[in-house]
Amino acid sequence: MDKYLKENERIDDLQFNELKIIQNPNGFCFGIDAVLLANFVKVKQKHKMVDLGTGTGIIPILVSGKSRVSEIIGVEIQDEVADMAKRSVELNRLQDRIKIENIDMRQICSIIGKNSYDVVTSNPPYMHSNGMINPNDKKAISRHGIMCDLEDVIKIAADLLKPNGKFFMVNRSQRLVDIIDFGRKYKLEAKVMRFIHSKVGKSPKLVLVEFVKYAKPELKILNPLYVYKEDGTYTEELLSIYANQSVEV
Amino acid sequence: MDKYLKENERIDDLQFNELKIIQNPNGFCFGIDAVLLANFVKVKQKHKMVDLGTGTGIIPILVSGKSRVSEIIGVEIQDEVADMAKRSVELNRLQDRIKIENIDMRQICSIIGKNSYDVVTSNPPYMHSNGMINPNDKKAISRHGIMCDLEDVIKIAADLLKPNGKFFMVNRSQRLVDIIDFGRKYKLEAKVMRFIHSKVGKSPKLVLVEFVKYAKPELKILNPLYVYKEDGTYTEELLSIYANQSVEV
Repeated sequence: MDKYLKENERIDDLQFNELKIIQNPNGFCFGIDAVLLANFVKVKQKHKMVDLGTGTGIIPILVSGKSRVSEIIGVEIQDEVADMAKRSVELNRLQDRIKIENIDMRQICSIIGKNSYDVVTSNPPYMHSNGMINPNDKKAISRHGIMCDLEDVIKIAADLLKPNGKFFMVNRSQRLVDIIDFGRKYKLEAKVMRFIHSKVGKSPKLVLVEFVKYAKPELKILNPLYVYKEDGTYTEELLSIYANQSVEV
Repeated sequence: MDKYLKENERIDDLQFNELKIIQNPNGFCFGIDAVLLANFVKVKQKHKMVDLGTGTGIIPILVSGKSRVSEIIGVEIQDEVADMAKRSVELNRLQDRIKIENIDMRQICSIIGKNSYDVVTSNPPYMHSNGMINPNDKKAISRHGIMCDLEDVIKIAADLLKPNGKFFMVNRSQRLVDIIDFGRKYKLEAKVMRFIHSKVGKSPKLVLVEFVKYAKPELKILNPLYVYKEDGTYTEELLSIYANQSVEV
């Protein structure tokens, strides 16, 4: 397997359909938000999908395992991590279903066209409204000068989607007003939401959102997703999400 | 006490600071949403407050009991229920603190002026995005021809408030996208939200929102408010809210 790996990288077994992923413990590892987003995505075999800011390719790889979707494009601006994603795709022999585009997502429409995708996904780096970058993302983002903000991501998703196409995103719930407002600005109506709480009774830190292009207003908020039980172990639901996809907890 | 009552009306004891309210079991009774909204409101003695669509006056009366706020204006378009509210204010000898204006809320700014109130509250009748009226509100609303929609309520709240003034509202969570979007349209930024769930694990049906006029983006979502325990009895928190205000459960 070593031909696939560069320095400091390792191959992690996703324990699901024999899928694997290349990660670098010093900066490029996926988190629980990616797993929950992949679980939240609804996609059909005939669909064409784009993942914006794909990182190590975790969303395309997990979605390729849980669905029969035939075409996924992962867009990643950072050379180093896009290269890892490409090697993970090869490692899993998914080259016929997943393509990694190593470009700025603001250029993607000029390459693959507008209004023609069924599903867009994104787990964008979390930034505060004031433009401050979350320290957890800083290591990766500091390696290059340009960076899309939340409005860019939502605008690009809207551009890519067909009418009635769906955009699935995970983000920090403190950005909810921006998420909803930018969605409306670009004709993506938030139709389904699910808040992620660490425990029962705690405020939600993350939110999963399903937007539909040109849809009418009316939001469905699903039951909360709790990560931990009172005793600090994972909830049954979280374990079942991991078991289905099935990433090591 | 009979001099205060008309046909089919009754006086209910709020069991809190000896406050009482006149209600009519055939149409004008307050619900749990009013009690939770009154509990959610933050108001100081020196503040001037307006309650839009005050109904029987339950919000002004509960807020007058839990705070020392000196001036509350309750606006109610329906003659019959505004008259009940006025009599409840007299019954509680709160005429020096609460004034009921029996007019269309769209006219209130021309009477009391713009940009001069610290706090606005509203528990508006719930309508679907398509303009359908919730059956629970139909009896009352059908008695008159005109009716404000959610956007009117938010616009009027924004007009009334000073810069940094606060608008507290309760509504159905399925209207969340409209709530947030109309807020931004009229420079009311949603800053604090609390979802109300019937039980742990159930989707939230109601949401409490605190907007601040001209505030910067960044939302705080509080821990969920659960109404019932698994066994169907009220949660400790709900009992404590009722005990503080203190309305019979």
